[in-house]
Amino acid sequence: MPAVTTRVVALRAHTRAVEVLDQRELPARTTHLVLSTPEDVAHAIRTLTVRGAPLIGAAAYYGVWLGALSTTEGTSAAQDEAVQRAASLIRASRPTAVNLFHAVDAALRVWGGARGTPHERAAALRAAAEAWAHDDERACAAMALNGAALLPAEGGVLTHCNTGALATCGVGTAAGVIRAALAMGKKLTVYADETRPLLQGARLTAWELMQDGIPVVLLPDGAAAGLIRSGRIQAAITGADRIARNGDTANKVGTYGVALACHAHHVPFYIAAPWTTVDLNCATGADIPIEERHPSEVTHVQDVRMAPEGVAVFNPSFDVTPAHLIRGIITERGVFAPPHLAFQG
Amino acid sequence: MPAVTTRVVALRAHTRAVEVLDQRELPARTTHLVLSTPEDVAHAIRTLTVRGAPLIGAAAYYGVWLGALSTTEGTSAAQDEAVQRAASLIRASRPTAVNLFHAVDAALRVWGGARGTPHERAAALRAAAEAWAHDDERACAAMALNGAALLPAEGGVLTHCNTGALATCGVGTAAGVIRAALAMGKKLTVYADETRPLLQGARLTAWELMQDGIPVVLLPDGAAAGLIRSGRIQAAITGADRIARNGDTANKVGTYGVALACHAHHVPFYIAAPWTTVDLNCATGADIPIEERHPSEVTHVQDVRMAPEGVAVFNPSFDVTPAHLIRGIITERGVFAPPHLAFQG
Repeated sequence: MPAVTTRVVALRAHTRAVEVLDQRELPARTTHLVLSTPEDVAHAIRTLTVRGAPLIGAAAYYGVWLGALSTTEGTSAAQDEAVQRAASLIRASRPTAVNLFHAVDAALRVWGGARGTPHERAAALRAAAEAWAHDDERACAAMALNGAALLPAEGGVLTHCNTGALATCGVGTAAGVIRAALAMGKKLTVYADETRPLLQGARLTAWELMQDGIPVVLLPDGAAAGLIRSGRIQAAITGADRIARNGDTANKVGTYGVALACHAHHVPFYIAAPWTTVDLNCATGADIPIEERHPSEVTHVQDVRMAPEGVAVFNPSFDVTPAHLIRGIITERGVFAPPHLAFQG
Repeated sequence: MPAVTTRVVALRAHTRAVEVLDQRELPARTTHLVLSTPEDVAHAIRTLTVRGAPLIGAAAYYGVWLGALSTTEGTSAAQDEAVQRAASLIRASRPTAVNLFHAVDAALRVWGGARGTPHERAAALRAAAEAWAHDDERACAAMALNGAALLPAEGGVLTHCNTGALATCGVGTAAGVIRAALAMGKKLTVYADETRPLLQGARLTAWELMQDGIPVVLLPDGAAAGLIRSGRIQAAITGADRIARNGDTANKVGTYGVALACHAHHVPFYIAAPWTTVDLNCATGADIPIEERHPSEVTHVQDVRMAPEGVAVFNPSFDVTPAHLIRGIITERGVFAPPHLAFQG
């Protein structure tokens, strides 16, 4: 099988900063932003400049490092304080993707064990952040291989939101699996839900797949159920923002509806996510906190108002798909499928 | 029960023209357009300036009349030809809402029986168009009364697309039922799907309900399944564009997903539609032609491009909800419910 690759890179670490592709601007403009402080990183996560649970995790790790880096000229105590402040700031940026919390926890564990001068400790944290990002890249490659065999030899594969190179440090979660299936010679067309309100499917998935020459058809989220009913979809696969111990999975709002339609029409529905997305502290999906975002994401598109002034809005970023609707959860450690769809440490 | 009313009027006939509210411009601007020719009417239907299956029916009827009106100074033969041309033009404007075809057929039947001078025949057709519109208004009132008892005493009612005064000549189909339930003293909050791609829920339903002081919460289409799962929705109700003999119902794309989620969570899902929406020539939903519209409706919002240049798009305007997912179809002739959910002439 040819190497599974992509031309798209969402995050790159420099000596004293992290450079990210500004995902708010795609596909109209390919703009890179340099994040130099933990505040920059928290802001980038909050504003979805950087998004996708695995990429958020890596960015968060680098964000804690930037806290250590900002204080290499001071005392160890001042540096400890800066690292803790960075960790708190980043933890408060978005609540649902557990990768963020896992990355910050991991960074603080490394920090607690780091010895030497403030310069040396910051360098140790940077190396650990880099290792975290490389682990994510390797997890993507492993998921891609583990999942590719599950996709059909030909036909339509439906996906929701963005799960590719823009959401991870590698070839992606669900999009990585699709890339690997294509590399195996499977003849697939990707059907990408546009993913309201922020249109990550239209703006990011369509763009990313077209960059790599992958056939993609864009559709409104509401068209997915009818498309599935029509027989043109042989499998659906999405990423995840947090997976509970029992396999219940929080992912971008709209995922649950896709899973229900797949269930109604006997189309297999898969999740692809690295182990960092599994939250052993959540027994079921009911324990997963669901972020609600600003009404303007729904009432406005770019700066154009589409809904009447003053209308009330329900704008959850995620929904929970119960485990019984999931045919398999593809991780770098293998595929978890019923009746063994449960996670342990 | 207080009278079920609305402040919103979508279409008004004048002596030599029809005036419509330009629904493309709402809610930003309340603009009225004067349609003076069958071409104007066909264009208004094609561009969704006038939309909603029952309102399309009335507009179509008036459109045939405008054909007759344009030729009152010529021969009867020339007038016959103009009426037939108007009918063809309007029939070709949009394929799915059967009300359009029923209205044109009815207009041609009246035309065939109209006697007298060209002026008198045009006047007869105008009177018949007016009667059609009044029938639609009365059908709305009857549906509202027939359906109101089905809604819960309190709670959330989900709807999709626009089904109110902007979609009919009266208080609406599904929105009329909701208006009547509120007039009965039921304590309901309307949850309105924004309804991509053209956002009729955000632009029209939210606006129309707010005009009448009805509590409404707007949500992305993808959020509906999770909302239904959360227990905040006690019933869902939509309109229809065409109902087959067996009760299978074509309605705005996204309706099928709502019906599936309702089914999964034992929430009753209703259709409200006048008898003019029933197509006895369609045995099942498979016989209903589904319009696919231009990709730019999905790739652009207003004039802003959201998706990459050249992306392929799947943009059906409607989907079909099978009868077994429908708890009842509310018409002016009563509520049709399983196991008697079948229609006869």
